[in-house]
Amino acid sequence: MIKAGIIGSTGYAGAELVRLLLGHPQVQIVWYGSRSYVDQNYADIYRNMFELVDEKCMDENMDELISRCDVIFTATPQGLCASMINDKVLNEAKVIDLSADFRLKRVDVYEAWYHRTHESPEYLPEAVYGLCEINRDKIASARIIANPGCYTTTSILTLYPLVAEGLIDLRSIIVDAKSGTSGAGRGAKLPNLFCEVNESIKPYGVATHRHTPEIEEQLSYAAGMDYQNGESVLINFTPHLIPMNRGILATCYAQLKDGVSAEHVQAAYEKHYKEEFFIRLLGCGSFPETRWVEGSNFVDIGFTVDERTRRVIAVGALDNLVKGAAGQAVQNMNIVFGLEETMGLKLVPLFP
Amino acid sequence: MIKAGIIGSTGYAGAELVRLLLGHPQVQIVWYGSRSYVDQNYADIYRNMFELVDEKCMDENMDELISRCDVIFTATPQGLCASMINDKVLNEAKVIDLSADFRLKRVDVYEAWYHRTHESPEYLPEAVYGLCEINRDKIASARIIANPGCYTTTSILTLYPLVAEGLIDLRSIIVDAKSGTSGAGRGAKLPNLFCEVNESIKPYGVATHRHTPEIEEQLSYAAGMDYQNGESVLINFTPHLIPMNRGILATCYAQLKDGVSAEHVQAAYEKHYKEEFFIRLLGCGSFPETRWVEGSNFVDIGFTVDERTRRVIAVGALDNLVKGAAGQAVQNMNIVFGLEETMGLKLVPLFP
Amino acid sequence: MIKAGIIGSTGYAGAELVRLLLGHPQVQIVWYGSRSYVDQNYADIYRNMFELVDEKCMDENMDELISRCDVIFTATPQGLCASMINDKVLNEAKVIDLSADFRLKRVDVYEAWYHRTHESPEYLPEAVYGLCEINRDKIASARIIANPGCYTTTSILTLYPLVAEGLIDLRSIIVDAKSGTSGAGRGAKLPNLFCEVNESIKPYGVATHRHTPEIEEQLSYAAGMDYQNGESVLINFTPHLIPMNRGILATCYAQLKDGVSAEHVQAAYEKHYKEEFFIRLLGCGSFPETRWVEGSNFVDIGFTVDERTRRVIAVGALDNLVKGAAGQAVQNMNIVFGLEETMGLKLVPLFP
Amino acid sequence: MIKAGIIGSTGYAGAELVRLLLGHPQVQIVWYGSRSYVDQNYADIYRNMFELVDEKCMDENMDELISRCDVIFTATPQGLCASMINDKVLNEAKVIDLSADFRLKRVDVYEAWYHRTHESPEYLPEAVYGLCEINRDKIASARIIANPGCYTTTSILTLYPLVAEGLIDLRSIIVDAKSGTSGAGRGAKLPNLFCEVNESIKPYGVATHRHTPEIEEQLSYAAGMDYQNGESVLINFTPHLIPMNRGILATCYAQLKDGVSAEHVQAAYEKHYKEEFFIRLLGCGSFPETRWVEGSNFVDIGFTVDERTRRVIAVGALDNLVKGAAGQAVQNMNIVFGLEETMGLKLVPLFP
Repeated sequence: MIKAGIIGSTGYAGAELVRLLLGHPQVQIVWYGSRSYVDQNYADIYRNMFELVDEKCMDENMDELISRCDVIFTATPQGLCASMINDKVLNEAKVIDLSADFRLKRVDVYEAWYHRTHESPEYLPEAVYGLCEINRDKIASARIIANPGCYTTTSILTLYPLVAEGLIDLRSIIVDAKSGTSGAGRGAKLPNLFCEVNESIKPYGVATHRHTPEIEEQLSYAAGMDYQNGESVLINFTPHLIPMNRGILATCYAQLKDGVSAEHVQAAYEKHYKEEFFIRLLGCGSFPETRWVEGSNFVDIGFTVDERTRRVIAVGALDNLVKGAAGQAVQNMNIVFGLEETMGLKLVPLFP
Repeated sequence: MIKAGIIGSTGYAGAELVRLLLGHPQVQIVWYGSRSYVDQNYADIYRNMFELVDEKCMDENMDELISRCDVIFTATPQGLCASMINDKVLNEAKVIDLSADFRLKRVDVYEAWYHRTHESPEYLPEAVYGLCEINRDKIASARIIANPGCYTTTSILTLYPLVAEGLIDLRSIIVDAKSGTSGAGRGAKLPNLFCEVNESIKPYGVATHRHTPEIEEQLSYAAGMDYQNGESVLINFTPHLIPMNRGILATCYAQLKDGVSAEHVQAAYEKHYKEEFFIRLLGCGSFPETRWVEGSNFVDIGFTVDERTRRVIAVGALDNLVKGAAGQAVQNMNIVFGLEETMGLKLVPLFP
Repeated sequence: MIKAGIIGSTGYAGAELVRLLLGHPQVQIVWYGSRSYVDQNYADIYRNMFELVDEKCMDENMDELISRCDVIFTATPQGLCASMINDKVLNEAKVIDLSADFRLKRVDVYEAWYHRTHESPEYLPEAVYGLCEINRDKIASARIIANPGCYTTTSILTLYPLVAEGLIDLRSIIVDAKSGTSGAGRGAKLPNLFCEVNESIKPYGVATHRHTPEIEEQLSYAAGMDYQNGESVLINFTPHLIPMNRGILATCYAQLKDGVSAEHVQAAYEKHYKEEFFIRLLGCGSFPETRWVEGSNFVDIGFTVDERTRRVIAVGALDNLVKGAAGQAVQNMNIVFGLEETMGLKLVPLFP
Repeated sequence: MIKAGIIGSTGYAGAELVRLLLGHPQVQIVWYGSRSYVDQNYADIYRNMFELVDEKCMDENMDELISRCDVIFTATPQGLCASMINDKVLNEAKVIDLSADFRLKRVDVYEAWYHRTHESPEYLPEAVYGLCEINRDKIASARIIANPGCYTTTSILTLYPLVAEGLIDLRSIIVDAKSGTSGAGRGAKLPNLFCEVNESIKPYGVATHRHTPEIEEQLSYAAGMDYQNGESVLINFTPHLIPMNRGILATCYAQLKDGVSAEHVQAAYEKHYKEEFFIRLLGCGSFPETRWVEGSNFVDIGFTVDERTRRVIAVGALDNLVKGAAGQAVQNMNIVFGLEETMGLKLVPLFP
């Protein structure tokens, strides 16, 4: 059995990790970390775990934590993982970081978008961006895995084949994204109160959202650009808050290059994703809806080509807490530990 | 492998059966019955099943159905199961009926509340009321199992120990129940439109809801009454429609007999349910919330005693599509086929 | 023009007062009080008021406040109104208190249920309970009006005629109430986050909710009891939180006295409410739904009689922020200032 | 008093017309038309109107209708208004059509996008597109007013100043729109059931939605194009369904021309809208949310300029049933009848 520790187990992503790992046949959770709820029963914080988890929340005693764990998931605010990482930790346990600390390879970009100093930039080179379907090989041998953001997983997976196959004008990409409210976390903040979110939709972080450079970096690699030396795809990314618990939908627009048809687009998707268990290709003219992926690790992708404007509109949808966070983290863990990649993740979407 | 057929597989309860049976290690679904969608791909009706189910919807050819199946689930409108049942069917397959056809032992009561003639009353005596925690022994050898209603499962399980132990005045029982909208089914009816249900709450079926006699009959048995000969507990049962997808909460009121304390109530619950995996006792002063059971087969029960009025207020909650329908049906199947009762049902509640 | 000040104008009830008073032809709001947002633009706190309100939030300078105002609304936490009230205030302005400070006549009851010392019990005798349809005459000449709670307005108005006409057993009353989330206020608390409330229902304050004694006191008066000397109706009151913004529904149960029929119940309602503009009687067999009163000052009431159990089930519904708070406060103001009682309150319910 | 008839008064837009006209000081509704509910009490269809409307639903007897009415609102499916219009009607009453029959000047475009033959193209030339803030002068003397669509009002008003002032590349416009579910109407259709809409978001009509040519035509006029002869702006318009009752938000993207700055954009908005009561300009860096306009006739518009990509992202929000349908229809009526344009429409947004 793999022994897993979760730092930040009482946030929504952390709690989803608990849900998934409880159903994983090869994992035992040995550390329910939580700065806010130390010494409280985990099942008192999340009553769905009543009679399922009989553990107390633990503080951040790293020495004890790494001595007990084979893998550490950090589902924590920005900066925490970067501040705790060191060779001792990495020699004893694999680290799968659900925060953004190791997602961006360029420290200057990180500091510009996150407005904070990176505390362990020396580990950036070895950290692997844990987008499983794209980086599977590198993940297998990584010590630190930067688990991608929820918006970014949706956006990158939807756009990747179009960029990699050179079908679209790289200056024309726009991602208009919509997310359920669990993406905002479990902090007690006025904007996330029921009455503030319900019966409304709003954009936020327009032109400033931190997932923008993450998408740009990965798409730049897909395009074969020299990202480290300043080449980069530039996109517009606009997230919106939706009155629902779970789900992300990314509506992506791009100008097709001359001569590119719907068939070429379809072929690009099939080339990259046909064998992928967790990516379901709906084809041309069919579009995903978040209700069809809720609770599962699936990403559904559909598209159409508008011949009037010569744009492709490609849409991806996933559950932000599963494939957008905890599910992908478990998928990464499976790869790292040499388990079957889908182990514990063959979840049938819950509807309605 | 047990071969299962589902008649009415495209309703919400039927679709939940599909979800659960896909995850059951000992079952294969061989018949996706649906009068409304014959010959259509099941995964086109329920897109969450895309790439998970590759079958077409079947009509109601009973001969072929029973030749293929070991167990038949009927998740159909009232009357259908009663009209199709016969010895040939029962000799070849177990029948687990999610409709109300075989829930009430007295034909006169059935016909009075359901306003229809019962088409196969001769099978009423052998049918077993499939409330697993109460009737486990009888279920094991049954050919027809009447799977309980969603409101009734919640209400009966919450009140059963209080009645069985003689703690409450049987003339004083009131059940005020609240249900998510999936309980209303997938029919395209105006009252179930999003804009009609959202941002509202309403009572319905006040003093006339068909789950009333079902609760009364089972509580009468618990009280040791001679129900067949006209003795019966009488209750008030008031359901309300709530703007959410899943979940039932039943708030039950009853007058305590003299001398009965919270300790007696707690003892009664423990006596009956302490060993039950799917019943989680929250104790005195703690109350269930539907969010903590969503997607799972759990029933959460809590209570308090109000010394001012000498009433017990006991509250039960479950997921109406799982323990209130498909989950309990699978639990019944497990019992009937001698499998571990929790097989395929150890689902961690999904939150948020 | 009546000059109005609102202490606590940035809570949900306070903001609803602003909405209603902006549409009132005889009122000008001259004071937007808010402890939390002093000196901030009101329209920055409530962006619906952008270009409609051009004022800053004010602190609690009582001298200046009373010098400017004819009427002061206190939409504040428990205790604030009691702590600020004195003869000087009352000589200069009418006070309509939306908190519970002056609702209960008995200090011992207040302190037992609210767990706090009452700071100005000397004003309790003159304060008038502002349930307009019941206490209209006394309200007209009051200096302090205790604006009723949201649950209590619903519950009392639904039960009042039954109690006043002696139709029901006073020991048998149970009120099972359901409320939208705006009733919980705008405080940034974890239990009120969108993801915690959405897709769930929960009871709370079971047998301990503070609106219980308020209902009991008023029903005791209706029954002609000597409440000050210890006689009282005792009820069970159970509130539930519903995933919607606005609306309260109270499902009330009581045992009918011998010989009382549905006709008697209907006659009792008509006797008391037939001429009331804001009370809409749906009659026997029809039941209210909160969607039909949203945004309006209406209370809808329906009922049925269950001959099997000899209980009446009466259901009332209103908008908790209007008739349950700000609307009733304006109605009280209209009465106090000799205006037409419906002025500014003939709001057509908003649906959907 | 203006006598108003509503054909299609039992749809959501028709019912909103009823709500608004009941509060309009110069209008009396004399005809509640409804094909589906002839002879039924209007207040039985919309229970919010109980005791407010005491009329029965009427059939489509046009002779009687026009003899009674000064203005006829048609809130009906496509084609009905075109089939009933003739000189006799127009000589007796003004017609304000909430359907799309007279919105598009080019019959070929209408028939291509609506897949139906236009039954009275001879009236297209005189019909005026009722976008009040843009076409106020023409509306004043019109006999037929084509009331704009909900998505189109939002999209056009958000983009109009940018196009009219020549600030953006006309080939670069993308509108990603999100709508509450009331926009889908009150028809009993499976995709609009609560459980299908709740907890999900989906795109629909991608590259094919009928509001596309309506937006394109009006923006073409703004750009000074010869639309009748085939010149046209071409855009991508993608609507999404959101789990809420009311509200539309349109996120609009366009490439800025060289040298255009945020100040130019702001100046363009102010030039066109500064004096408009119903348009609220939030300025650069602030964005609308549908909760702030609910129940009102306001359109809120905000924007930002992304210097990285040189795009403007402009966002508009309104209540689809008010400014997006019934409110704008009343505004048009006010203009046509020479009333103050805001009469009956100074509604304070309802929040929460």
